[in-house]
Amino acid sequence: MDKNVITLAHGMGGTKMQSLINDLILKHLSNPVIDRLEDSAVLPRLKGSPVFTTDSFVVSPLFFPGSDIGRLAVCGTVNDLAAMAAKPLYITTAFIIEEGFLTADLERILVSIKKAADEAGVIVAAGDTKVVERGKADGIFINTSGLGVAPEKSRVSSSAARPGNAVIISGNIGDHEIAILQAREKMGIETGLKSDCAPLYSMIEPLIRRGTGIRVMRDATRGGLGAVLNEIAAASGVNIRLNQEDIPVDKGVKAVCGLLGFDPLFLANEGKMLIICEAKEAKRAVKLLKGSKYGKKAAVIGKVEAKSSKPLVTIDTEAGGERIVFMPEGGQLPRIC
Amino acid sequence: MDKNVITLAHGMGGTKMQSLINDLILKHLSNPVIDRLEDSAVLPRLKGSPVFTTDSFVVSPLFFPGSDIGRLAVCGTVNDLAAMAAKPLYITTAFIIEEGFLTADLERILVSIKKAADEAGVIVAAGDTKVVERGKADGIFINTSGLGVAPEKSRVSSSAARPGNAVIISGNIGDHEIAILQAREKMGIETGLKSDCAPLYSMIEPLIRRGTGIRVMRDATRGGLGAVLNEIAAASGVNIRLNQEDIPVDKGVKAVCGLLGFDPLFLANEGKMLIICEAKEAKRAVKLLKGSKYGKKAAVIGKVEAKSSKPLVTIDTEAGGERIVFMPEGGQLPRIC
Repeated sequence: MDKNVITLAHGMGGTKMQSLINDLILKHLSNPVIDRLEDSAVLPRLKGSPVFTTDSFVVSPLFFPGSDIGRLAVCGTVNDLAAMAAKPLYITTAFIIEEGFLTADLERILVSIKKAADEAGVIVAAGDTKVVERGKADGIFINTSGLGVAPEKSRVSSSAARPGNAVIISGNIGDHEIAILQAREKMGIETGLKSDCAPLYSMIEPLIRRGTGIRVMRDATRGGLGAVLNEIAAASGVNIRLNQEDIPVDKGVKAVCGLLGFDPLFLANEGKMLIICEAKEAKRAVKLLKGSKYGKKAAVIGKVEAKSSKPLVTIDTEAGGERIVFMPEGGQLPRIC
Repeated sequence: MDKNVITLAHGMGGTKMQSLINDLILKHLSNPVIDRLEDSAVLPRLKGSPVFTTDSFVVSPLFFPGSDIGRLAVCGTVNDLAAMAAKPLYITTAFIIEEGFLTADLERILVSIKKAADEAGVIVAAGDTKVVERGKADGIFINTSGLGVAPEKSRVSSSAARPGNAVIISGNIGDHEIAILQAREKMGIETGLKSDCAPLYSMIEPLIRRGTGIRVMRDATRGGLGAVLNEIAAASGVNIRLNQEDIPVDKGVKAVCGLLGFDPLFLANEGKMLIICEAKEAKRAVKLLKGSKYGKKAAVIGKVEAKSSKPLVTIDTEAGGERIVFMPEGGQLPRIC
């Protein structure tokens, strides 16, 4: 049996699986919780409301400029916790691996998971590994679930946007999806773009702690800012109006979008938080975001308008017009996360 | 676009995905927590230690005698919580679906998840759906993560077996793996066997509540009783000795094992708990198990022997000999869970 690749026996509960877990997975993800190797992880009491989430990651390719499926799997899940104002504490990692997957690639992914988990301040509390036959998966799929804790008074919710609130984005939109696209295809444009994949709790923690009147937070992933804003408008029963020239977009993203007819509003991000807060706090919130590593280009990009029974998202375009930002039918590319 | 199958757009964050979630997934899994559709689920405070686990399910075929991937995904995860003496409270469900998967099959799986979750007393708190291209997965893979709560004084652990303790199994071993095998291949033996897939917390709750001196509990899935006992022997530093004639095995399982040279000790179970408890409590524990729907054939099957620096699991065979139950290298069949 080739030690350089993952085989079906590595997922079958015997010595081969033990060796995969002990010699490779725990080599990188070891900590006092997971090392117990019990059927589940018993954790210390939480001081607040538990916040629970899950996400599977099927991104293709597995390695792309600026990140990889391992970092993505950590960030995607901790950001879903952060969006509910929850401090991420624990994650689980579950791997579905295609027979023949290179052990070296698995190790590279484990290193990346560990690094991202450390940056995010979370402990990998439990895991699982399954192996399927060649041709029955695509390299590796990763599920991460997350457990965090929110202050019991937190009322952050997609349904909490109110007329007059300010709409803030924490930085450039579209970098992740265009980085994935460029990793897939040569397009004759050299943008040097990297995925924005990043864990965002430390960026928003000062806003939560200092009470900047946050009403809504959303991690603008699949479907991009456009889909997320439509969901918020519908959940809150309000119109939302954006100002295009205030929305930060990298010039490389603009160039690729121009070439392919993509709209940056619908491109996936993996390191951007959309925040809706009370208007009087918006300046202070943006200043706090700008003080963080991942929030340097934070900006107010619009506002919440009137209550509406037919909620709409609109945008004042750079050309001087106004158009409706419709909910897209699907995204622009499959498997970007 | 064919409404009868899942397409890539159903995983891409727009109206197609909203329709899949609202018209199909929430039709079956709706509850006040998941219906909020926020980035993560904010839950009420837990009264005890949080217990967290994850498992992915890649079983093939998806539907098999007695169960299906939906029920399996719920039971596998709630049983991992139960094995730490934790009451299962919440699960997440994450689907990775192959493009072209029948919507009717997804609905059948959702109905099964809902039924099993209700039986197990857990709420589906959060979910995720990804779709990959045809040929990049195998129908559907499901990850479930679980959150439960354990009494803070609980010391159940694989490392807690002590010399003199009794070894108990809650019923027949091997039914699940042989049911899967029979769903895959015609073998000329009609056993009528069904998977034992079941949620086990309600079976063990009386033992926990009444203080039956439980030291170890393990859900004997991949690798079967043989692998789990070897893990416990190693973690506790003890020898374990089984008595073959006390181990309950269905005659159909015996027949198939005889035909194929399988050993029931290494067959996966999805509704059996291995329990190690103080010897003086063993009779009472078995009686309590027998009083439950899934514990009718519970039996004491062996005992924990001396402390050992080279822990061994042995079995007194029906033929009158004694042999070592070695840790298997892998399981006997791939993709049984």
